[in-house]
Amino acid sequence: MKTIQIRTSERVELIDITSTVQAYVSEKGTLNGIIIIYVPHTTCGITINEHADPDVVRDIKMQLGKLAPENAGYHHYEGNSDSHVKSSLIGASETVIISNSQLLLGTWQGIFLCDFDGPRTRNVHLKIMAD
Amino acid sequence: MKTIQIRTSERVELIDITSTVQAYVSEKGTLNGIIIIYVPHTTCGITINEHADPDVVRDIKMQLGKLAPENAGYHHYEGNSDSHVKSSLIGASETVIISNSQLLLGTWQGIFLCDFDGPRTRNVHLKIMAD
Amino acid sequence: MKTIQIRTSERVELIDITSTVQAYVSEKGTLNGIIIIYVPHTTCGITINEHADPDVVRDIKMQLGKLAPENAGYHHYEGNSDSHVKSSLIGASETVIISNSQLLLGTWQGIFLCDFDGPRTRNVHLKIMAD
Repeated sequence: MKTIQIRTSERVELIDITSTVQAYVSEKGTLNGIIIIYVPHTTCGITINEHADPDVVRDIKMQLGKLAPENAGYHHYEGNSDSHVKSSLIGASETVIISNSQLLLGTWQGIFLCDFDGPRTRNVHLKIMAD
Repeated sequence: MKTIQIRTSERVELIDITSTVQAYVSEKGTLNGIIIIYVPHTTCGITINEHADPDVVRDIKMQLGKLAPENAGYHHYEGNSDSHVKSSLIGASETVIISNSQLLLGTWQGIFLCDFDGPRTRNVHLKIMAD
Repeated sequence: MKTIQIRTSERVELIDITSTVQAYVSEKGTLNGIIIIYVPHTTCGITINEHADPDVVRDIKMQLGKLAPENAGYHHYEGNSDSHVKSSLIGASETVIISNSQLLLGTWQGIFLCDFDGPRTRNVHLKIMAD
């Protein structure tokens, strides 16, 4: 198991961590199996989506902002309930298949850490289960 | 594999099952691996979010109620389509890393069974894959 | 690992792939473990929900269409940002427990490939981790 640290720079930011995840798979020398990418923060999520055109991430951020606006009559005293709602909608982890030492992602797929309440330094756990 | 039963008491309720999941990991004596927490009901979900301030859960329930209102011109004859929509938004399972015999959760993270069509007695499957 | 191909016939379509996933588990002869159902496309998702009354799928499609309308001031040049948003809301994979050679699904649960930008031919990866 390995924990990586990511520094975010905006309140809502999706950071492409694909190459870091692949580097860990290569470092471990895992031929086949799965990897769990897990974020231990309640105002973050992990998602897989297009990492070619940055406008896709921009549109996802925009639309999530409509589904959980910053102010919507929430009760939580910290004022970041929108971030918690987004965290549950996106989910705390993704599982990716490892095949022939490579993440078995689609052509356009990248793995993103979503920070919904940044900027902060965030941890992401990487856990490989080998065949 | 183990199946636990949870009795819910409201139509929409998030119940913290973290200690029950940890108890199973301890009982099995698993040192390292992963655990899948899976709900076999189509009007439920499993989510990970803050279990310190109960207002976070209250806000998540409120906002999900806006994303899938109880009445929204649905066609399903049972009248609980809002519950089915929430189930797909939240997802039927979560995967958590086990490290040194402990669930590797963040400080504020708890594991919740979400019942979107209670009150009922619900099953949750716990499945450990050890290293 | 196995990759199956699914031909979709509408722009937004949920296709029940439960029997195909079960057939792979039977073919492999896996007694106990887990299976990851993973879609390598950024405008698709995998969800688990009711496959008895087709109106449940109809209602899920309808409600997701309200959460991510086809036109909502998006910036992505391909004009399918609604599909990308839905993909992140639903998620790229599901994990299902295998118990006594059977998918441990609930009575009403089916596994669906969600195509949010069809019609196309889509791939779905099936990966078993045996006990």
